Amino acid sequence: MAHKARRGFSNQEFENRTRRCQAMMANQGLETLWVCTEPEVRYFTGFHTPFWQSPTRPWFVVVPSSGKPIAVIPSIGASSMSSTWVDDIRTWPAPQPEDDGVTLLIDCLKEVTTPDGRIGLPMGPETHVRMPLRDYAKVRAAFGEFFDSTEIIRSLRMVKSDEEITKHQYICSVVSDAFDALPGILNTGMTERQAFASFRAEILRQGADDVPYLVGATGPGGIDDIIRQPSDRIIAQGDLLIFDTGSTFDGYFSDFDRNFAFASADQSAQDAYKAVWDATEAGLAIVKPGATTTQIFNAMNDVLMKNGSLGNNVGRMGHGLGMQVTEWPSHTIDDETPIEENMVLTLEPGLEWAPGKVMVHEENLVVRSTGPELLSRRAAEKLPII
Amino acid sequence: MAHKARRGFSNQEFENRTRRCQAMMANQGLETLWVCTEPEVRYFTGFHTPFWQSPTRPWFVVVPSSGKPIAVIPSIGASSMSSTWVDDIRTWPAPQPEDDGVTLLIDCLKEVTTPDGRIGLPMGPETHVRMPLRDYAKVRAAFGEFFDSTEIIRSLRMVKSDEEITKHQYICSVVSDAFDALPGILNTGMTERQAFASFRAEILRQGADDVPYLVGATGPGGIDDIIRQPSDRIIAQGDLLIFDTGSTFDGYFSDFDRNFAFASADQSAQDAYKAVWDATEAGLAIVKPGATTTQIFNAMNDVLMKNGSLGNNVGRMGHGLGMQVTEWPSHTIDDETPIEENMVLTLEPGLEWAPGKVMVHEENLVVRSTGPELLSRRAAEKLPII
Repeated sequence: MAHKARRGFSNQEFENRTRRCQAMMANQGLETLWVCTEPEVRYFTGFHTPFWQSPTRPWFVVVPSSGKPIAVIPSIGASSMSSTWVDDIRTWPAPQPEDDGVTLLIDCLKEVTTPDGRIGLPMGPETHVRMPLRDYAKVRAAFGEFFDSTEIIRSLRMVKSDEEITKHQYICSVVSDAFDALPGILNTGMTERQAFASFRAEILRQGADDVPYLVGATGPGGIDDIIRQPSDRIIAQGDLLIFDTGSTFDGYFSDFDRNFAFASADQSAQDAYKAVWDATEAGLAIVKPGATTTQIFNAMNDVLMKNGSLGNNVGRMGHGLGMQVTEWPSHTIDDETPIEENMVLTLEPGLEWAPGKVMVHEENLVVRSTGPELLSRRAAEKLPII
Repeated sequence: MAHKARRGFSNQEFENRTRRCQAMMANQGLETLWVCTEPEVRYFTGFHTPFWQSPTRPWFVVVPSSGKPIAVIPSIGASSMSSTWVDDIRTWPAPQPEDDGVTLLIDCLKEVTTPDGRIGLPMGPETHVRMPLRDYAKVRAAFGEFFDSTEIIRSLRMVKSDEEITKHQYICSVVSDAFDALPGILNTGMTERQAFASFRAEILRQGADDVPYLVGATGPGGIDDIIRQPSDRIIAQGDLLIFDTGSTFDGYFSDFDRNFAFASADQSAQDAYKAVWDATEAGLAIVKPGATTTQIFNAMNDVLMKNGSLGNNVGRMGHGLGMQVTEWPSHTIDDETPIEENMVLTLEPGLEWAPGKVMVHEENLVVRSTGPELLSRRAAEKLPII
């Protein structure tokens, strides 16, 4: 089993995150920034709970121009928040629909912002405002306008710290072990659902905290959909199977898949497998600081096109990875994000190799100064047959 | 083990949901309604995937004044969506940050709405708009104003169908079995983390699809926080333990907790346990169609006050349960929601029984014409000692 990574973070980590954020805020003329989504609140505070699945209560963190972030949260979170590095915790007895944190948030923003000071809020791609729109309108009305700070949050979260990377290393190692164990766990005659349950149990047994994301499919000679939930379909000889999992350790994700065939596979399926494997190699050869997501996309796409790809409905060939199973950036034809050292990325080339038959490979890596360091154990070069 | 419930839904279920929605829309003078959050999209279409954890792509469903809902979704979801009852599926190759479904959504809304027709969108308590605020502003600009349709979605989702209730029955039975097995699984000397992992594995072994929500804590003679993640703390004699889990079957949740003591418990802890058990009894005695959430709150709160409660930071004493671990309504002092037949609810009385020591009980039930039918197996009347 993988060597266990440390849990939690040093206070230095949160100080660095906040200081970097405040430097970017100053550059953009922002006095204050506020966030209301789980990864952003966790990023600045360390507050980590599955309680966010309850849609009832909004949670806010305000980053002033200097000093520590301020938590403006429901009282049910006060005890957990007080165990983080945050000192200033303001609570209200949520749920309280007539004023669910709105006044408290407005007062906090006013307190830390001069009358003409600019306040930032992420409003761009991959963000949303996790509070009722009617309540957001009240907050906005108190200030006139907020400034889109997506770019600040995006650039902060895209580059991982050493402490974050060790968590990715651990969970990717755990899931690699679980994938390696699959041939001994799966059999024809099982249903997809039984196969899913066995794989989930194995990932947990190997040391994951949770398996929030598990999708996959089986099909005779090929698969038509890669985001599906399991069915009662019985796995038969000649089937192809894909499992794709985002598993977590201490709130950080792995996200990679593996493909298997049962008993036998057509040459065309084996060729499709080799095409995405080769495409991944082409991507790995390109990844280094200074390259762009578009160059990575093109390198992989060229290989797929040469291998007769009919296209790909995923819309991209990999993405960032972190506290969420997908994060900025995206490897697309026009994303053009410069790759930086310590980004954690997936490479995810996929193709439709025959009408209604898709093949997708995925690996996880951290960008080092000289190139990629794989976090997932590299998939076999040839389609594994169970 | 519990008798397995049927997966998926009949088409009749989706027809009923849509027809009820359209009747309410007509009553409120709405021609069209749109939604963009996971439970709402699933409610109208049956589209069910953990892919929503990826924040990259927005997903939309448009409900016209008559006929089936229309899906406006990323192309990666086309195959899964086409296996639902929905016929009209419009896709774009997301991610495409310069126009991530905005034009497609605007065109769809215009197509099904007359020039002066009113369009609804949930904007009230427990809702949010899951798309970038900048993109939402573009959609809003194309129409001037949307009308808050929280009440339509809320009243639809609060009352469950027979098909939904069977899923709740199954998962609550599974989790009851897993809680019953706990005394044989847990020991002093384990860490909290080991206890969590063992319990999660047991719930899955008993037949849950997943355990998305699992919180809890241990402490010498009491517990100060009920939404915490496990630590490396070693469980010792004299500890109290609480586990609270939201586990799922076919996308429907259980949500209840259980408390245990190891080796021994102070009389004050046993009294606190009995107080919340008695409070639950008082709640169960009140639940029936025509009662209100406020009456349920008051019935439970009276018992806790008589038992010397120092208060409660949860903000409510139970809530609705369904596709999310918490849903409308909330049992609070002023919520005043009338209880209806076939609501699925939790009762969750809690008190601080000594400074820094809290005790919370939770049960799940479905409201029948004559009163509550328990879904969770009722907790023991006295604090169980392992």
